[in-house]
Amino acid sequence: MDRSATGEDVGRVVAAAERLGLKAHPIPGAQRTAVGITGNKGAVGPGAFESLPGVLEVIRVSHPYKLVSREFHPEDTIVSVGGVPVGGTRIVVIAGPCAVETREQTLTIAREVKARGADLLRGGAYKPRTSPYAFQGLAEEGLKILAEAREATGLPVVTEVLDTETVDLVASYADCLQVGARNMQNFELLKKAGRTGKPVLLKRGMSATLEEFLLAAEYVLSEGNPNVVLCERGIRTFSDFTRNTLDLSVVPAVERLSHLPIVVDPSHGTGRRDKVVPMSRASIAAGADGIAVEVHHKPAEALSDGPQALTPDMFSELMDQIRPIAAAVGRTA
Amino acid sequence: MDRSATGEDVGRVVAAAERLGLKAHPIPGAQRTAVGITGNKGAVGPGAFESLPGVLEVIRVSHPYKLVSREFHPEDTIVSVGGVPVGGTRIVVIAGPCAVETREQTLTIAREVKARGADLLRGGAYKPRTSPYAFQGLAEEGLKILAEAREATGLPVVTEVLDTETVDLVASYADCLQVGARNMQNFELLKKAGRTGKPVLLKRGMSATLEEFLLAAEYVLSEGNPNVVLCERGIRTFSDFTRNTLDLSVVPAVERLSHLPIVVDPSHGTGRRDKVVPMSRASIAAGADGIAVEVHHKPAEALSDGPQALTPDMFSELMDQIRPIAAAVGRTA
Amino acid sequence: MDRSATGEDVGRVVAAAERLGLKAHPIPGAQRTAVGITGNKGAVGPGAFESLPGVLEVIRVSHPYKLVSREFHPEDTIVSVGGVPVGGTRIVVIAGPCAVETREQTLTIAREVKARGADLLRGGAYKPRTSPYAFQGLAEEGLKILAEAREATGLPVVTEVLDTETVDLVASYADCLQVGARNMQNFELLKKAGRTGKPVLLKRGMSATLEEFLLAAEYVLSEGNPNVVLCERGIRTFSDFTRNTLDLSVVPAVERLSHLPIVVDPSHGTGRRDKVVPMSRASIAAGADGIAVEVHHKPAEALSDGPQALTPDMFSELMDQIRPIAAAVGRTA
Amino acid sequence: MDRSATGEDVGRVVAAAERLGLKAHPIPGAQRTAVGITGNKGAVGPGAFESLPGVLEVIRVSHPYKLVSREFHPEDTIVSVGGVPVGGTRIVVIAGPCAVETREQTLTIAREVKARGADLLRGGAYKPRTSPYAFQGLAEEGLKILAEAREATGLPVVTEVLDTETVDLVASYADCLQVGARNMQNFELLKKAGRTGKPVLLKRGMSATLEEFLLAAEYVLSEGNPNVVLCERGIRTFSDFTRNTLDLSVVPAVERLSHLPIVVDPSHGTGRRDKVVPMSRASIAAGADGIAVEVHHKPAEALSDGPQALTPDMFSELMDQIRPIAAAVGRTA
Repeated sequence: MDRSATGEDVGRVVAAAERLGLKAHPIPGAQRTAVGITGNKGAVGPGAFESLPGVLEVIRVSHPYKLVSREFHPEDTIVSVGGVPVGGTRIVVIAGPCAVETREQTLTIAREVKARGADLLRGGAYKPRTSPYAFQGLAEEGLKILAEAREATGLPVVTEVLDTETVDLVASYADCLQVGARNMQNFELLKKAGRTGKPVLLKRGMSATLEEFLLAAEYVLSEGNPNVVLCERGIRTFSDFTRNTLDLSVVPAVERLSHLPIVVDPSHGTGRRDKVVPMSRASIAAGADGIAVEVHHKPAEALSDGPQALTPDMFSELMDQIRPIAAAVGRTA
Repeated sequence: MDRSATGEDVGRVVAAAERLGLKAHPIPGAQRTAVGITGNKGAVGPGAFESLPGVLEVIRVSHPYKLVSREFHPEDTIVSVGGVPVGGTRIVVIAGPCAVETREQTLTIAREVKARGADLLRGGAYKPRTSPYAFQGLAEEGLKILAEAREATGLPVVTEVLDTETVDLVASYADCLQVGARNMQNFELLKKAGRTGKPVLLKRGMSATLEEFLLAAEYVLSEGNPNVVLCERGIRTFSDFTRNTLDLSVVPAVERLSHLPIVVDPSHGTGRRDKVVPMSRASIAAGADGIAVEVHHKPAEALSDGPQALTPDMFSELMDQIRPIAAAVGRTA
Repeated sequence: MDRSATGEDVGRVVAAAERLGLKAHPIPGAQRTAVGITGNKGAVGPGAFESLPGVLEVIRVSHPYKLVSREFHPEDTIVSVGGVPVGGTRIVVIAGPCAVETREQTLTIAREVKARGADLLRGGAYKPRTSPYAFQGLAEEGLKILAEAREATGLPVVTEVLDTETVDLVASYADCLQVGARNMQNFELLKKAGRTGKPVLLKRGMSATLEEFLLAAEYVLSEGNPNVVLCERGIRTFSDFTRNTLDLSVVPAVERLSHLPIVVDPSHGTGRRDKVVPMSRASIAAGADGIAVEVHHKPAEALSDGPQALTPDMFSELMDQIRPIAAAVGRTA
Repeated sequence: MDRSATGEDVGRVVAAAERLGLKAHPIPGAQRTAVGITGNKGAVGPGAFESLPGVLEVIRVSHPYKLVSREFHPEDTIVSVGGVPVGGTRIVVIAGPCAVETREQTLTIAREVKARGADLLRGGAYKPRTSPYAFQGLAEEGLKILAEAREATGLPVVTEVLDTETVDLVASYADCLQVGARNMQNFELLKKAGRTGKPVLLKRGMSATLEEFLLAAEYVLSEGNPNVVLCERGIRTFSDFTRNTLDLSVVPAVERLSHLPIVVDPSHGTGRRDKVVPMSRASIAAGADGIAVEVHHKPAEALSDGPQALTPDMFSELMDQIRPIAAAVGRTA
């Protein structure tokens, strides 16, 4: 409360809380009175109090998420993606091209990454592109190519879903639905992806706080689907030497607050090939459950995001470098 | 090029450009060579060059948007929303509740804002909410209430569309489709909203650069729909005394680069009632074509965003304060 | 407290508070207990509690500044800079070159801005430059030129002070000491500038929160010098179409929390000449007490910050445009 | 150049470049002309061209730093701090209290960190504090305590210098001068610290770009002092679950652009004790040459930054965890 708030002002706050089924606890101090409010199950926002006379500020002290929270589910969740466990002791490596461009390109890259140690195949059939004039993906044709690559290599497939209208189609081909950073708060998409029951790889939005990120996952879980893999892929900041700023501290923060597994995408997270290997090492050292990287056999000809793609040989180098780091944190890769 | 790049390296860049139908212009300096590339119509990204040997950095010097650009369309666009022109000399005031909560609430507020000078009615029937447990809107029931409020007051209706599956339904009731900040890069939604031909109020994403904002509008225009009203509503920064940081400089920047009208939402842009009136004045002084504000007759009971809603009396005060500012910049309100 | 905190954990927090001379008020909720702490005069930080067992989070609810606060000093402070009042009904216009380059350049510009309506002359004799190879200013020679320009025009002089060792020298020539954004948390400089008793124009740091900004002013006031003029000059964000992001909402926020006057620098705040006039209008409409702008008679030859400097004719245009805005908010310019 | 720029406009740019001793290379494209400028040694800024008629944008393609650059000095620099090499194959661990509080506290902590494997002792005698009412450090008394701790343990001492007036005093006690984040662009301090010839631990400013960071180091080197150790300590972003956002990608970025060693401070970089160990692992995995951490034997009683300090036992745990990571990247710790 304001320094000048009266006993009546405090009384009005208490009454407002009680009308909403909450309990209010006035705490008089030397110069002002604070009022603690308890019993809020998430439905009451600060607006209920902020506009009352004498109220200086409303500060929330508890968190609005539940199902994703470690408080409610203390054990780590292990998500099975086409039989590959994400969140256990083994580090998961998700690799593949940014976009499915041709059958030959995708099969070549899938075989390369399989041979060099990848666990899951990634590749976009539907591409969210900043410009309407950029390549938008092969759509269902791309999904078929991915399914064929799975047949050929045994690698389960992770691919992006852009819109509620294609969720069921994508789910009929994919082992895991990726919800991209730009759609992290596309709540209709989250709900529909949740209803498929398929694992969801949820990328953190470019300006998402940790609470917003966890609440986005809560949308999927609240549809009865516990199979969410979180993915840090860099946030928007002033720092301009990388495309985004990889916020690796989110890895131990998620581990503390949530039971869900988290992987890191250092390709989008930095936007530059020469940062992918060191930041992959750093991700695993920070405690991430896996990494997602872009690999292209001819990066200079890639239709999207060429500058961040690794060649197959660089991918081998990556695998060689992360294995000892995984071992150092008591895991395998 | 790198300081250590050879003539062969430069030759490879020139050849790559020519293979892509572009023209390369080497510029030798004292210590390194730069290569200017011309003829790019937007389809070729930096990846085509960044991975060639000897290349230090690829810097883009032209912009990828066209239809939204003032270079291609020098005259200001005036968008008609249900007969109300947005972008002319008259400042447009868009007012109403954050969410349609009940028939009585919406009709009351609509009559209040009409009587006090609003030009358009805003209100959400579909609400994007950070938490799955928060009020999500009345859906079609809310659209019917908005249509009734239009009947009662004559105010055309602006309301948010969240998903491609409901675009046609919303368009059948609304005079203008709002695409929210969280959906600014929901490209499927932009395309489908574009195809309705209805005016689109496009809010800037919380971490959108100006180029991304204009390219999002380009998605709508590229569907043959020129009726886009841009809306600044604050960006995500470290600055924590407001909910978002209202980036008002975007108003003269848009005016220079684009022919589209731009309005400002100081309610979401600041998140605090006491900042709405001064920032509305500032918006119009900066050259905005209008403002969008939240009004609620009982803010303390609002189901969403109460702390930023004005009461009807504060809205009258707002109108009184912006009129002389509009006059000072040669406009009316 | 944590959901799993015991009564003993709570007891330990209460005891710790009492040991520090504070009072603790436990508030039991359905699922967890909160503890309100009162009586803190600013000396005790969150660390005293954060590391105790069972403590989930420590949240501060009161502000650590005092002398700058409107709570303690309700009336607006008007700072007199060489006889010119800053903070009253008259809008103050501070104009001049970024750097003092030559006697002729400074006198020319001083006469131009005086003739066109400026109230105070600005210009740097000591320049903080990102690169050690850039022009660093004329030092005392520049101060003498500024003093001569004051003689010639009657305009009091505002100039930057970079280091404690030159504070007294600068104070012997200047009417107002500017502390730049990069030095906003150079606390030794703030203290020494405070001790001169001269007015201080304190620029907000590029990444300063409002609380940090007000605490920097508190350093000056706590030396017994109440003559501080705050200055918003843009913050660092991802938004890249301007050099900095002018955070104009800080104007009403400061007006609410503090009695100190605040001016805006739209030249540094945007970094681009074509944004200076509209953002000056917006600043005054938002409630600023003045503006500080860079003017150069030959911007293309300026030794620093040419792209943001106005020509004298543009400065006349600026004056013409801000006068009606000032009138619209009940002030003069 | 603008689409509408004339041949004369281009001619004027060429002439302006030649007047400044530079060379201009016009590159005509289909729709506009670009002009490449070469020969700039850093003294000419964009202002020289930006204000000429027909100029649309000035884009810098080369970097203004030299002495810190790997291009000019390809081999890694190894800085000797009191005989301890920073930048070689051995990972350097800098540990100690945030502030020197008492003789007993500092000697206790120094002995603890020495026994558990630290290489250098850190501790502040001069403390930059956001509030004028917070503990400001013991000043010279603190320096004497640090010197005594060095005697007792053999650990060289790193301590912060706040102001040009105390540089010589601090340098007479310390083995390495720390320039804090708030002073990264206090250019007078950088120059004077440079002139002492002592090693300088330069912390990245909270809103510093990589280029600004390297230019700050260039200030020290340009005084003839090559002994700079860079230190990443987190940047200011919207992300609020940590006190700052540790920007670890800067480690490989610095390694590519500069020959200077870089260490990471995960204590300030995250502000939370439970993130220090995982982010220390991540720092070394990313390629950092060392870490700087805060240790306090009684964190709950620390006079500053208690929430981020490790206990001695946690410090042992840290050492145990970073050794295998160091080994995994071919180094020792």
